[in-house]
Amino acid sequence: MNINKNYQNIADSYLFSTVAKKVSEFSSKNPDKKIIRLGIGDVTLPLCKAVVSALKSACDEMGVKETFRGYGPEQGYEFLKTRLQDYYKSHNVDLELDEIFISDGAKSDLGNILDLFAVDNTVLVPDPVYPVYVDTNTMAGRKIVYIDANEQNDFLPLPDSSVKADIIYLCSPNNPTGAVYNKTQLKKWVDYANENHAVILFDSAYECFITDKELPRSIYEIEGAKTCAIEFCSLSKTAGFTGTRCGYTIVPKTLVFDGVSLNKMWLRRQTTKFNGVPYIIQRGAEAVFTPEGLEEIQENLNYYRENAKLISETLKKHNIWHIGGKHSPYIWLRCPNNMTSWEFFDYLLENVQVVGTPGAGFGKNGEGYFRLTSFGSRENTIEAVERLDKLFG
Amino acid sequence: MNINKNYQNIADSYLFSTVAKKVSEFSSKNPDKKIIRLGIGDVTLPLCKAVVSALKSACDEMGVKETFRGYGPEQGYEFLKTRLQDYYKSHNVDLELDEIFISDGAKSDLGNILDLFAVDNTVLVPDPVYPVYVDTNTMAGRKIVYIDANEQNDFLPLPDSSVKADIIYLCSPNNPTGAVYNKTQLKKWVDYANENHAVILFDSAYECFITDKELPRSIYEIEGAKTCAIEFCSLSKTAGFTGTRCGYTIVPKTLVFDGVSLNKMWLRRQTTKFNGVPYIIQRGAEAVFTPEGLEEIQENLNYYRENAKLISETLKKHNIWHIGGKHSPYIWLRCPNNMTSWEFFDYLLENVQVVGTPGAGFGKNGEGYFRLTSFGSRENTIEAVERLDKLFG
Repeated sequence: MNINKNYQNIADSYLFSTVAKKVSEFSSKNPDKKIIRLGIGDVTLPLCKAVVSALKSACDEMGVKETFRGYGPEQGYEFLKTRLQDYYKSHNVDLELDEIFISDGAKSDLGNILDLFAVDNTVLVPDPVYPVYVDTNTMAGRKIVYIDANEQNDFLPLPDSSVKADIIYLCSPNNPTGAVYNKTQLKKWVDYANENHAVILFDSAYECFITDKELPRSIYEIEGAKTCAIEFCSLSKTAGFTGTRCGYTIVPKTLVFDGVSLNKMWLRRQTTKFNGVPYIIQRGAEAVFTPEGLEEIQENLNYYRENAKLISETLKKHNIWHIGGKHSPYIWLRCPNNMTSWEFFDYLLENVQVVGTPGAGFGKNGEGYFRLTSFGSRENTIEAVERLDKLFG
Repeated sequence: MNINKNYQNIADSYLFSTVAKKVSEFSSKNPDKKIIRLGIGDVTLPLCKAVVSALKSACDEMGVKETFRGYGPEQGYEFLKTRLQDYYKSHNVDLELDEIFISDGAKSDLGNILDLFAVDNTVLVPDPVYPVYVDTNTMAGRKIVYIDANEQNDFLPLPDSSVKADIIYLCSPNNPTGAVYNKTQLKKWVDYANENHAVILFDSAYECFITDKELPRSIYEIEGAKTCAIEFCSLSKTAGFTGTRCGYTIVPKTLVFDGVSLNKMWLRRQTTKFNGVPYIIQRGAEAVFTPEGLEEIQENLNYYRENAKLISETLKKHNIWHIGGKHSPYIWLRCPNNMTSWEFFDYLLENVQVVGTPGAGFGKNGEGYFRLTSFGSRENTIEAVERLDKLFG
């Protein structure tokens, strides 16, 4: 048996392990110092009451013969898909039920969708970027080209007509930068894709943080997107489902390449290589989109938004260039005094014991930048910004 | 963008849709006749009490900040892996914790594991077979060769040294035939794989039905298997998890091809393209392997075993050749009077309104055979065998 040799080309990721190692070393040398982590990319608030209650009811159903559920539809139950259809409708996007596929998270489907595409496609990835886009394509042996995201373009690169690409990754609100495309900008990508026979893989995992109604929460708010884009979203950040695992993928029926429907291909992929999200979890996800659920998750999102605001205001006070934090849980800042990402990491750790994520870990254009997140507790976030205020003051 | 053209080579599966269509047509013509389905491949008994209780406790934990869990380890929580380690130990297999990967089911991982292998491998598949083995490899463009399972070899084909294969699928107890390899037979496959630098993908999803201690429940009961085999199992049939979704995949650390560890490759694949099984579901799965859970699931398994026995005894009484049903939920019978699979299907539907699955749907060697299952209710199973008894009598 010959192994898939492309695995040997995946870069080892030392980012989070190096962060952990440095923190642990500092900690053992300074056991009395309290470390505050603002690098965390995981939610910390618990599931909301409506969700827990729905999950538990579903558990009870599974314990009784009359209401027990065996294999469900691989693409998800209609009760949840109907809620998602309404959710999209609430930001003016019309979807048919069989364009919605329930998944166990955006990460899985962002990787699995690649099954549908030939290996000889060229992939376009913005830099800096969520590492999974690059790693999954490297594993499959696809050629990757990069497009620069930087201060000159507000970390929102636009298409370059001289660059030929077949598969385009866009993430807005962006991880790691927190930058959000407006409709005019996104329209340029949609037009480019339609003109170039390319497919856009649109990662909208952070859409729930958008509050400005003028900013698109779905790529399907843009005319023409339904003939070129697949959208991936997740309840991970929307409703704290990082450990509960539920997301959704939208594959429009008008998405046709070489006369073949990607919607039909994806249905075939999912029915062959997936068996659906647990019934219990789908009932929990359904509860997110009830009026009570939607109200409760807004409270949690507002909590994180307030954290982001506290961080952003402190940076502003000290004239530290940064973006994000407004329609995103991430704050992306330029390291002061021309420090590199790792120099700034060490500087913060040693002086104020605040831990963030070095931007260099997300690609070459991340060098000299740093990511802070709003997912910590309020108390810790307040303490961290007080320490930063003092340090920069 | 060029699509993956291999999808055009996947055979459309009309098996279950044709069954459904025929049943529905009969039903509308004969609304007063009660149809009994013995073709069902899904469990019908509810989750056991220990599992429901554990699931609900975990739901409560997720609703409280102090016990809330975000992202978990992609390869599964140690609390569940430790239980599985003990479970394997109980049938004399020693595993290290990091050889165990928690999955959302055997079907997903049987497809996903193919990411690790080059496209230019030859795949060996027994015929008749669970269609997923063929479809997932066809999607990836691999060459497939078949080995005949038939009455001459008791539907348990052994390796043919003249056939060169790199990836070998084995399923024991088998779906659809219910045939079970003994240790001597399985040793021949293990030796063949080790001699030919091949990997065995061993689907043990029905191992829980084995009661004879001499029959292997895991391929790792066979000497040499840890250098050639990956094992896939699921709680779907073990504990009625078809709609609850949890399984496990074993990748031994001694499984090394071309100097590369498949265990490390699989870990990299899962951390990149998967985010783990829901915490709540893993707590439910843990409860399966507690003393109470193990006792409760045996009651359910005995219920299905008794159904199988009822079917098997009726067939025996009428001298209808069949296998399975003893260490398997499936009964595989030769259609009486040289009927084809579909002729027998129509004959049963029209005369006694019993629905089974035509063997021809599982491959060319399935023609002339028929699959019945033990997953119905006791009342329906009794009524079905009484009707069959009358029909054949």
